[in-house]
Amino acid sequence: MKSQRMRIAIVGAGFAGLNVAKALRKAAVDILLVDRNNFHTFTPLLYQVATCGLDPSDIAYPVRGILRGQSNLRFLLGTVTGIDTDAKTLTVSTQDGATVEPYDILVLAAGAVTSYFGDTAIERFSFDIKSLEGSLELRNHVLRQFEAAAWADDPRVRRAMTTMVVVGGGATGIEMAGSLFELYSFVFKHEYPQIADLEPRIILIEASNTLLAPYPERLRAAAVRQLESLGVEVRLGVKVTQAHPGHVILSDGDAIETHTLVWAAGVEGSPLARSLGVPLERGGRVPVNADLTAVGLDGVYVIGDLAYLIDPATGRPHPQVIPVAIQQAKTAAANIIARIDGRKPKPFSYFDKGMMATIGRSRAVAWPFNRVQLTGYFAWLTWLTLHLLWLLGFRNRLSVLMNWVWSYFTYDRSVKIIIDPAVRRETVEPAAEEIAV
Amino acid sequence: MKSQRMRIAIVGAGFAGLNVAKALRKAAVDILLVDRNNFHTFTPLLYQVATCGLDPSDIAYPVRGILRGQSNLRFLLGTVTGIDTDAKTLTVSTQDGATVEPYDILVLAAGAVTSYFGDTAIERFSFDIKSLEGSLELRNHVLRQFEAAAWADDPRVRRAMTTMVVVGGGATGIEMAGSLFELYSFVFKHEYPQIADLEPRIILIEASNTLLAPYPERLRAAAVRQLESLGVEVRLGVKVTQAHPGHVILSDGDAIETHTLVWAAGVEGSPLARSLGVPLERGGRVPVNADLTAVGLDGVYVIGDLAYLIDPATGRPHPQVIPVAIQQAKTAAANIIARIDGRKPKPFSYFDKGMMATIGRSRAVAWPFNRVQLTGYFAWLTWLTLHLLWLLGFRNRLSVLMNWVWSYFTYDRSVKIIIDPAVRRETVEPAAEEIAV
Repeated sequence: MKSQRMRIAIVGAGFAGLNVAKALRKAAVDILLVDRNNFHTFTPLLYQVATCGLDPSDIAYPVRGILRGQSNLRFLLGTVTGIDTDAKTLTVSTQDGATVEPYDILVLAAGAVTSYFGDTAIERFSFDIKSLEGSLELRNHVLRQFEAAAWADDPRVRRAMTTMVVVGGGATGIEMAGSLFELYSFVFKHEYPQIADLEPRIILIEASNTLLAPYPERLRAAAVRQLESLGVEVRLGVKVTQAHPGHVILSDGDAIETHTLVWAAGVEGSPLARSLGVPLERGGRVPVNADLTAVGLDGVYVIGDLAYLIDPATGRPHPQVIPVAIQQAKTAAANIIARIDGRKPKPFSYFDKGMMATIGRSRAVAWPFNRVQLTGYFAWLTWLTLHLLWLLGFRNRLSVLMNWVWSYFTYDRSVKIIIDPAVRRETVEPAAEEIAV
Repeated sequence: MKSQRMRIAIVGAGFAGLNVAKALRKAAVDILLVDRNNFHTFTPLLYQVATCGLDPSDIAYPVRGILRGQSNLRFLLGTVTGIDTDAKTLTVSTQDGATVEPYDILVLAAGAVTSYFGDTAIERFSFDIKSLEGSLELRNHVLRQFEAAAWADDPRVRRAMTTMVVVGGGATGIEMAGSLFELYSFVFKHEYPQIADLEPRIILIEASNTLLAPYPERLRAAAVRQLESLGVEVRLGVKVTQAHPGHVILSDGDAIETHTLVWAAGVEGSPLARSLGVPLERGGRVPVNADLTAVGLDGVYVIGDLAYLIDPATGRPHPQVIPVAIQQAKTAAANIIARIDGRKPKPFSYFDKGMMATIGRSRAVAWPFNRVQLTGYFAWLTWLTLHLLWLLGFRNRLSVLMNWVWSYFTYDRSVKIIIDPAVRRETVEPAAEEIAV
């Protein structure tokens, strides 16, 4: 059916895209939301899925469930492969082939992807924990390493199987390293008695000479101290220069024998940005105006990790964090309505609520409103509480809370299962080309 | 290290194998438990994973967690590919190649697999819900069908995408059909408004002219009545004779247009039974003596779905159900200890606690102790309560209870996520042959 209403296409059901859709709930527009997954991922807790603490469904929330009853929205499960800003169309590849969807206004919220800084060897050999699939892949791999180590006769091989190298001193790397270490020392120690000499070994590597660069000095020092008090080896000022089967080589010439390399060293804008045909900023981000429209493009809003806008308050581009994405979503939605109503758009201004990272049981650093500096137990409680509140949906909050309480008291993790990808054989479903969709 | 203690090899960590291991907890033996998964599956609730009701970890319990602290047991993650009853060795294929493990006493509890009665076309095209992987595969497929149907223009194609054929009138088929129907009518109806003409269509096909054959007449009739009152089409006395892309053909000539064929029509003993080199009974089961040793084999116990033993009480072979597996496990363990101590073994005798099947919300049939005949709400409550109690572990009980309560009040399902198998690329883990295990 044809519609006279403005057609708003939103690419990405992350925090940015989802919140634009929600904010346009009551608007007289036709919204098309496209995502490659049928769920929204609560990315801050992905590392807990990778380390056997949470179930996928605890942090993956079905898009159709979130937007249930929003009558002005249609969801399309597929990957946007092209954007034609002249014809104002999206090309979307779906399970049943490709479809071309027209739009009047585009909201590009495709986010960021892991950056390997062009090092294809490292890309080939390392785990990417930015997606739910990648996190499950790492979970399976870690569990398999211990199953193998339990039967390995050569102590050196055992050691390599139970040594994990995490690259990247940001929140993701820190949380992954801490959580992996606790998985070893609290859980695996008791479940792999065959590995008599099991010594958990987690090495966190950061190229710069500090962890959590954006944090104040005191909290950065606290993060290192807390990681080391846990048992994590922190190596600052070195890079992983080579990845080989069985070992990685560092910039200081050191070789670490390991079977597991986790890469959390950086991100870059989604490659989809290139199809806009405008010059990109550092990190493959799209330069946007104060009203969040892409520079040089009419009717195209770019928000979230993909947007590049200098924050007047800091003189630096906005950080690629969830609060920025959510706040930009609200501004973009308001500006879209203003545009339709012929009113002037308002410039985006970011209210920074601060930052926090958890290191492990009773260990964390927090910098609420970039004022108070919290470390240790209290910072950890703050982290737990806020992340519970940020989760979507009562059921997920309850389920995550249950898993956390259970882990806290039992020192166990609930999801230590290896589920191999079941590669789908044929079904009675006809091949895409046989179906007239 | 060499050991003078009896080496007991247990193949399979299902209800039979796991309970033998547990019952030998205090025995002065060396137990080797082999399973292809690192978890035990609570099979009665697999259909709820396939229909978005439960998380895998709700019904998959890590073997090492269950047997934590059992010092006389080693767990080996791998698939037994061969048994040499003369040399008394198992050949196990693991992630790092193959290994040969010696034993003094073998407990074969490899269970049953889905039987297609030799029909390779149906095997190729249908979903097997006997494993966790298969159930997740079906979950992904069902969700994908609806995502596609939401955008399909041709009403006939839409209909085929939202029509599911379930084959098999046993408990598994009935529970799957009922649960699929409720997923449609309670959940998808609200989440796929684009499918204006969405009419849930679930067809349950059973070759014989009754559902739940072993149940008394009244309960069998009740099962049909309850399924039909829900909306499931029950077709008795017909078979699926052909499966093609887009449709299946029934023995009465009827063709049903569908993209989904679920096969729960029968099981047969694990193919591993053949490597015992003894003649097998009907359904590929291994004939066993009253003490549960395999007929004609010394020191080999076969228990659970794979064992074939006539029940003196009924004159028929024991049913392939969990209570038989658990009770046989206890008898086998006792007989193994008796054998070591030079005492006489005791014959297996089955205490039948009855049977039950759930059809959907407030719908079920139960026949406790094969005496009382329960139907409807009360049978359903009995089913819920007992299955909660049968689950392993407090955390799983709590999690399943939470999901059930949540579904009951919201009429929603919590796990509507499509997670594509992440096909593992290379890692820094060396190839198997490079590792000396």
